[in-house]
Amino acid sequence: MTLTVAWIAVDWGTSNMRCWGIDAHGAILASATSDKGMGRLTPQQFPEALRETIAAFPLPANPVDVLICGMAGARQGWREAPYLEAPADLRGLAAAAVRPDMDDQGLQPLILPGICQKQGGENVMRGEETQLLGLATLLPDYSGLVCMPGTHSKWALLRGTHIEHFTTAMTGEMFDVLKTHTVLRHSLTGELDGPARAEGFAAGAADGLERPQDLLGQLFRVRAAALLSGRQPDWCAGYLSGLLIGTEIAANRHQIGNEPVPLIGSASLCALYVKVLEMAGAKGRPVDATEVVLAGLKAARQFRS
Amino acid sequence: MTLTVAWIAVDWGTSNMRCWGIDAHGAILASATSDKGMGRLTPQQFPEALRETIAAFPLPANPVDVLICGMAGARQGWREAPYLEAPADLRGLAAAAVRPDMDDQGLQPLILPGICQKQGGENVMRGEETQLLGLATLLPDYSGLVCMPGTHSKWALLRGTHIEHFTTAMTGEMFDVLKTHTVLRHSLTGELDGPARAEGFAAGAADGLERPQDLLGQLFRVRAAALLSGRQPDWCAGYLSGLLIGTEIAANRHQIGNEPVPLIGSASLCALYVKVLEMAGAKGRPVDATEVVLAGLKAARQFRS
Repeated sequence: MTLTVAWIAVDWGTSNMRCWGIDAHGAILASATSDKGMGRLTPQQFPEALRETIAAFPLPANPVDVLICGMAGARQGWREAPYLEAPADLRGLAAAAVRPDMDDQGLQPLILPGICQKQGGENVMRGEETQLLGLATLLPDYSGLVCMPGTHSKWALLRGTHIEHFTTAMTGEMFDVLKTHTVLRHSLTGELDGPARAEGFAAGAADGLERPQDLLGQLFRVRAAALLSGRQPDWCAGYLSGLLIGTEIAANRHQIGNEPVPLIGSASLCALYVKVLEMAGAKGRPVDATEVVLAGLKAARQFRS
Repeated sequence: MTLTVAWIAVDWGTSNMRCWGIDAHGAILASATSDKGMGRLTPQQFPEALRETIAAFPLPANPVDVLICGMAGARQGWREAPYLEAPADLRGLAAAAVRPDMDDQGLQPLILPGICQKQGGENVMRGEETQLLGLATLLPDYSGLVCMPGTHSKWALLRGTHIEHFTTAMTGEMFDVLKTHTVLRHSLTGELDGPARAEGFAAGAADGLERPQDLLGQLFRVRAAALLSGRQPDWCAGYLSGLLIGTEIAANRHQIGNEPVPLIGSASLCALYVKVLEMAGAKGRPVDATEVVLAGLKAARQFRS
């Protein structure tokens, strides 16, 4: 007897998508990735992108569910999945999911909603809510801040499966635009990963932690340090990265307790956040991002009423 | 008898230059502007750009001094004029000036230095130091912070003609890159100067003044407010502008006393800073930027030993 997938889990982001074929026992039978992220697709192109990506999956004769989280549910995505409003119990994600059009009887797609926040600071997330549900199943006793570093870092206050409050820091995107489009680019052209990067990172993180209210002023130090002290591009890149992450962590420091902060993101970025959290007298605990999103999609399916 | 200029004052910035022909009594006989800023010129092209711009000035038979401030003295300018180091007495600017090459016996150019700061935060300025000297002659009793809003806002602590300390906030450039190159651009496309701009500005300024340490987080509110509350581009543009200026002023608030802060910059920008200073319980006093730079060039010439 050939094994076939019982359902398909999909993390559909802006720049790429990842699919996993799951068997009846929750094991991964197949996986595939594609660069057909939401940003490259019109609504009509989603069904074909999905079919293409899972073409090699062993499908059964009967229709299978395809559970999708992320930007496929944005207004400019496949079909808009209206936000759940925080505070919210993430076990309710699947109950609020929407069915996009799919001209294929064998696949039954379902897009999970994102979370919005209207009180205490307007905010939105899409995709991270599923990772948070996954984290809540992996660390069922955790209560506190969760940090998800990236282009737009999310900081969420999680109590079990409940998301209480969250914020978004544009840290990663700021690094990119400052490096590419501002006067700082003159100090950031050349070898950015040289030996002085770590030293610059530590100096920037210290400045950001010490005076987060002065980010607009401290940024210019990247330029001044190159002009006055002959700092090389690797030091300057480290300084800018450290300054931004230090500033971000300082703004959240008052909400961090003694327990390590779970960090969900790329391993290299999480390692930097661990360093700066330690400089701030706190602790970080990297969690594998793929494991977390898969756990979240499984949990969402399981809690579907 | 035809009047001729006794000397020429030049403010040579990155994107344009302004020249004034001054008579023996300090009156302006002629003025001209050009878009041949430092950013568009190789060192060899400066003499011709100067000659072209002042072509209509009534020159005497004898050679005339051309006193220049600004980016013409940068490393990538006409000739590098090494920085004076703060703290410094700005009456010493002309004594530290450099003579660039000029194949024209009738013009004797002299480029004033910028100011650098190595202790208490590395920093640099070029052009603003001459405006500060001008301010010190126009307001001889002023002692305190001076704010020069713009692409890179300068905040200088001035005591008479002495510059004690200064900082640079990348406020204007941040507004431009955030509007053009980040996810916020989606909320900032369309009519930016509509009726809701003032309301957005006030909301952003209040947020920036209240939580300057959280700029990275508050920026994303521009996007969230558009998605969740249907805020239009004019409101979002006002919010972003107010948030950045509020954050900048909050970082300097502890150094502002009861006297109005002199503001040197464009009239429209200075009016925004006056508003936010008032929201912060302080006062601003716009000073005409052209008057100030001319006063500075005259004073620099007068104090030349």
